[in-house]
Amino acid sequence: MRCPGSTPGLATQDIHTRRGGKRDEELILPINSSLSVTLHQDQLKTTTTAVISKDFTEDRIWLNGREEDIGQPRIQACLREIRRLARKRRSGDEEDLLPLSLNYKVHIASVNNFPTAAGLASSASGYACLAYALAQVYGVKSDLSEVARRGSGSACRSLYGGFVEWQMGEQADGKDSVARQVAPESHWPELRVLILVVSAEKKLTGSTVGMQTSVETSPLLRFRAEAVVPARMAEMIRYVKERNFQGFGQLTMKDSNQFHATCLDTFPPISYLNDTSRHIIHLVHRFNAHHGQTKVAYTFDAGPNAVIFTLDDTVAEFVAAVRHSFPPESNGDKFLKGLPVKPAPLSDELKAALGMDPTPGGIKYIIATQVGPGPQILDHPHAHLLGPDGLPKPTV
Amino acid sequence: MRCPGSTPGLATQDIHTRRGGKRDEELILPINSSLSVTLHQDQLKTTTTAVISKDFTEDRIWLNGREEDIGQPRIQACLREIRRLARKRRSGDEEDLLPLSLNYKVHIASVNNFPTAAGLASSASGYACLAYALAQVYGVKSDLSEVARRGSGSACRSLYGGFVEWQMGEQADGKDSVARQVAPESHWPELRVLILVVSAEKKLTGSTVGMQTSVETSPLLRFRAEAVVPARMAEMIRYVKERNFQGFGQLTMKDSNQFHATCLDTFPPISYLNDTSRHIIHLVHRFNAHHGQTKVAYTFDAGPNAVIFTLDDTVAEFVAAVRHSFPPESNGDKFLKGLPVKPAPLSDELKAALGMDPTPGGIKYIIATQVGPGPQILDHPHAHLLGPDGLPKPTV
Repeated sequence: MRCPGSTPGLATQDIHTRRGGKRDEELILPINSSLSVTLHQDQLKTTTTAVISKDFTEDRIWLNGREEDIGQPRIQACLREIRRLARKRRSGDEEDLLPLSLNYKVHIASVNNFPTAAGLASSASGYACLAYALAQVYGVKSDLSEVARRGSGSACRSLYGGFVEWQMGEQADGKDSVARQVAPESHWPELRVLILVVSAEKKLTGSTVGMQTSVETSPLLRFRAEAVVPARMAEMIRYVKERNFQGFGQLTMKDSNQFHATCLDTFPPISYLNDTSRHIIHLVHRFNAHHGQTKVAYTFDAGPNAVIFTLDDTVAEFVAAVRHSFPPESNGDKFLKGLPVKPAPLSDELKAALGMDPTPGGIKYIIATQVGPGPQILDHPHAHLLGPDGLPKPTV
Repeated sequence: MRCPGSTPGLATQDIHTRRGGKRDEELILPINSSLSVTLHQDQLKTTTTAVISKDFTEDRIWLNGREEDIGQPRIQACLREIRRLARKRRSGDEEDLLPLSLNYKVHIASVNNFPTAAGLASSASGYACLAYALAQVYGVKSDLSEVARRGSGSACRSLYGGFVEWQMGEQADGKDSVARQVAPESHWPELRVLILVVSAEKKLTGSTVGMQTSVETSPLLRFRAEAVVPARMAEMIRYVKERNFQGFGQLTMKDSNQFHATCLDTFPPISYLNDTSRHIIHLVHRFNAHHGQTKVAYTFDAGPNAVIFTLDDTVAEFVAAVRHSFPPESNGDKFLKGLPVKPAPLSDELKAALGMDPTPGGIKYIIATQVGPGPQILDHPHAHLLGPDGLPKPTV
């Protein structure tokens, strides 16, 4: 057993113009730049272990404990790219300690602690973690944007902590389509993130299929990418740098809505939002109207779950408003996961302002989290997912 | 009692770019042209009676049997406009038989036979009927586009039968913002219209409020009005003239989706579609995919109800597919209203192709109808809604 690399990855939440579709499906190049917030691994993470050995007879991969087809084109693209980078590095390296390892087969095990394929950016987190773990075992030190991007476009942003921009780039080969950190995770300590999990069901349309159809059929998407996003990117980066929650929150909501508008303008149309998502949108606007300012903002990725941005002094009241509008059905004690949130009373004025009939069970649970760092290396062998035999450890 | 004018109006269903928002809220001028189909009065109609009398002491109005505030700005705008037209006509008329009638107060009664404010264009039908009835009692013979438009923009289209275009016009005073018939109701006899009534609840956002916010806040709406709609209008008129259902159906769906996309791009966002609407959209695309061609098309106005276009040879099979996907809950016998539809078997292949879990009760009922004529005058006194005393007749 050599070079066990083990990496907890991370989930990202986009705050801007993320999945504008792709201009090149093979290289996974986007039609617009985008910005995301990396969520904290204490609450949402992918853990990946990669091991290479001369004893392995084939590449193999286990996702959430189940062996999957290693032949999947995106996984193959990542493997090909990381081996290319490793070869490139070693050909110029005199003291190469692992001349043969490139020919070794790899075993990979990866686990998410949040629902897969439910619009929680599981593939971004997963492929970032895969790229980082492979880089460890193959000794690659260069920029991993391209490796991660080949797996899932938005994964390149998850290679960094804090606030991360994915610059679309201009070159046809995508070499300048890379992620860069706009601000580190320590930049805005008051910022909080609440994930309202509406449904853990698999979505009807995978986001990859969806985005490609959008590029081909939506006139609004092209206009958005060319005429709306560039100015919004600059504006959003300014709001983040200034820690301007009003601006940040409003633009986040507008851009989420516009993204989902282009999904609807796709033919056949794509709808990621459901009735509960729309009730959450309504709740946020009522909450803000009651306070006379943007204290809470929503964004939705390719699924019905809401990601809520707010500041630490508003979390308790907003969670109380969510509990009021979506009374937990049976799991009152497990309704809130992640960071602790103190119970807060809800004023009668705010209750009246929300003006909605409660929807019991509409929200399954809330994950409270915050901005987090990029990939972390887990040194302790206990944390590794593969045992000394190169096979997944039995789960308890 | 003098000049009892009684007019059944009509409901319209827009097939194109209808409510693109308004460029002038006072004059009710649209930011793009639009096209609609006038539905048949045998199934959907407004009936309006207007009476003027020297004995009336004030203007009064009853809607669906209940007296309403005649001071509503839009009703006042219609009254002002019709009296202006009447005055203009009579000042040049030697043999004016009713010199004093302009000063008479008017009583108006109006009844819809379909749910009000549920996205079924009740205000279009209602104001068209009001304009036409008032024109009868005040002896106005000129174009009524402006009178109807002042009540509800899309009402100007309901003054004609068949396929009707509302030309947005260019003049600041709106004089050239008028409706014209593209093709009469007899033009495409095979065309059928099914209204799938999802909810008769009042909608959260009235369409007037919604449209104005859209004009102010949605970048996509402006782009749509300027860069997308003009070409689509020309294309749609061509499809109608050629009776090309493939083209007509696809463009109808695309344009409905794009309209709702601009609603979502509005801030705060507007959502007229609900989960049942989205299931209907899915059903239509699956149905068409099974047949390898566009046999059915949907469009949604400012509400969750679907309006389905299809041809007479497809009605029975599609209704069977709707019954299969949305099994009627308790009203199996009253599920289908309007034109008779023969029961049809659903092939196992089609059932499998629909691939949806049935949603019992998701659709309340279906109204089957077709393209219809413009306003009709009801001569028989039995049809009048106001009695000899100028007050609403008691309903049975």
